[in-house]
Amino acid sequence: MTQKQSSCSPTFVSVCDLSSLLEPVREDLDLVEQWLNSNLVDDSPFIAELLGQVFQAGGKRIRPALVLLAARATAAVPGSLTSLQTILAVLTELIHTASLVHDDVIDAASLRRGQETVNRKWSDKLAVLIGDLLFAQASVCLAKLSNPPIVGIYGQVLGDLCAGEIRQMRQQFVLAVDWDSYIQKSIWKTASLFAAGCESAAILNGCPGTAHAALKEYGLKLGICFQIVDDLLDFTGNSHTLGKSAGSDLAQGLITAPALFVLQRQDAPAAALKKLLQTRAVMSPEGLTQALSIVSNGGGIEATVELAGQYAAEAREALRPLTPSLYRDTLESLSDWLLTRTK
Amino acid sequence: MTQKQSSCSPTFVSVCDLSSLLEPVREDLDLVEQWLNSNLVDDSPFIAELLGQVFQAGGKRIRPALVLLAARATAAVPGSLTSLQTILAVLTELIHTASLVHDDVIDAASLRRGQETVNRKWSDKLAVLIGDLLFAQASVCLAKLSNPPIVGIYGQVLGDLCAGEIRQMRQQFVLAVDWDSYIQKSIWKTASLFAAGCESAAILNGCPGTAHAALKEYGLKLGICFQIVDDLLDFTGNSHTLGKSAGSDLAQGLITAPALFVLQRQDAPAAALKKLLQTRAVMSPEGLTQALSIVSNGGGIEATVELAGQYAAEAREALRPLTPSLYRDTLESLSDWLLTRTK
Repeated sequence: MTQKQSSCSPTFVSVCDLSSLLEPVREDLDLVEQWLNSNLVDDSPFIAELLGQVFQAGGKRIRPALVLLAARATAAVPGSLTSLQTILAVLTELIHTASLVHDDVIDAASLRRGQETVNRKWSDKLAVLIGDLLFAQASVCLAKLSNPPIVGIYGQVLGDLCAGEIRQMRQQFVLAVDWDSYIQKSIWKTASLFAAGCESAAILNGCPGTAHAALKEYGLKLGICFQIVDDLLDFTGNSHTLGKSAGSDLAQGLITAPALFVLQRQDAPAAALKKLLQTRAVMSPEGLTQALSIVSNGGGIEATVELAGQYAAEAREALRPLTPSLYRDTLESLSDWLLTRTK
Repeated sequence: MTQKQSSCSPTFVSVCDLSSLLEPVREDLDLVEQWLNSNLVDDSPFIAELLGQVFQAGGKRIRPALVLLAARATAAVPGSLTSLQTILAVLTELIHTASLVHDDVIDAASLRRGQETVNRKWSDKLAVLIGDLLFAQASVCLAKLSNPPIVGIYGQVLGDLCAGEIRQMRQQFVLAVDWDSYIQKSIWKTASLFAAGCESAAILNGCPGTAHAALKEYGLKLGICFQIVDDLLDFTGNSHTLGKSAGSDLAQGLITAPALFVLQRQDAPAAALKKLLQTRAVMSPEGLTQALSIVSNGGGIEATVELAGQYAAEAREALRPLTPSLYRDTLESLSDWLLTRTK
């Protein structure tokens, strides 16, 4: 397949809307969408319908896009894509969606992407099963790849996702400022899967070690950046764009970058925020509003934007060893887009 | 490794207690137990502790025992065992345990094997995560096997487990007598994993097609038999031996073999049972007691014992192509033991 022309040329316009940015892999993503809606497990129409409803709820499809771009950027025949790469993209989104469905049960969330969650729409029971079913679909895809190293990488990703959630559950209302733990949690929750997708695309292409390591590093740094921006949006977003209420992390005692930047100081705002958390006042609407404004007035937002920017720059830097192409440029532009996203 | 002497020789004594029966693979099972308690995902002591608590609750370890026996029965060096076979045994039990932990969330069960369930002891949230973590541990084991066909087999098993549960949820209080559906559900819920373990042991040993097919067929028939006996115990067991109340399937509107045998007739007991189900009277203790006695007096128990016996005989028959050994004899004896188990 030849390189496609994009209506939004990512080489020159570094930031534009995601849909235009992903134009070079639009047809690939359409194919991924068909796969996501396929019942790979059995021929039950009810199961097919459930899958359809889960994926109709949408999503940015960042993870499959990363796989597809990484694959086309490092293909032996420049810009080409094998069917195994499509399956890898599908598998990566399946694991992400499965973990979201289970997260929503765990958090008793009722909205996701502005739509009712599976647990809310049907029941916790069915949400547990649908999450498992998505993991099963992912396993079937993994088997189709017939690639033992990739099975190992994704096995570790599944473990990281669980470890991240369990760690997060245990760290609610833990106020010690520990940046290493925060970054580690971002890796477990998000960056591990981003890195797995990018690295595995290179493995399937039989890339040399440099390209392989470059893509893994890119995925890791981009994933950390993505999670930091996610944490930021919990402070700056609104329920219209986010599909959930702002401040929900803080209200649950989850201390992310914007709050950490304030808490690490020895001043009055730090003390006030600490008190609101220690007394669980953040669990009330008034307490939460107070806490959000302390973080916002205390420079927590700007410092977090800067931190995310550093990881985005490291992600871009990691791409250097790759041969220049429209796809490499798009990967680069994605890191810029991340910093501007509002949902 | 040479064949070990068993204190209960399964060749001559076809039925004895499970522990004696499994004596030929006792040391292997001890090693499996160590693996089950290992944290393969990260180095968190909390996660290691959770795993420990899940596996300390016990279990019969039938599935790993099947893998170990099938492996030793078909080894190129007779009676030997590779470390990959141990990992296969561990993986099989991990998948089983993960699905039990999630089933208990789905059924809001508070007792399992006479002990508090994970969801009851901690919370539904943690139970969802622990189930996912066990699936992740299984994926790590699967990766260690580096065997694409086995990845495919286990991917399908995961799908079957979910499909079976979803189908079961939807068939509550569906009174149409459909034996094919009942057997299919038994395959999805139980026999698929039994067959996968036995077949994969043969694959790892590089067995010829006959031994391979024989073990798959054995696992399938034994698994169906196991599920039928499970369904039977729900009618005949008590909370002391089962670790849950008798009749709980029927109270939830799950129509299994003993009830199917009564419902398929056109007589008064069939009509009475149908009415108790249609009116949901089985959900009350009095209605349930009535329904259980209709099934018991209507010959449902005896007919189910006979059905289980047929599958046990087919399982034994399937083993014929294997070279005679202590391990093949033990597999054969296991089918007899199944018919006498009380928990």
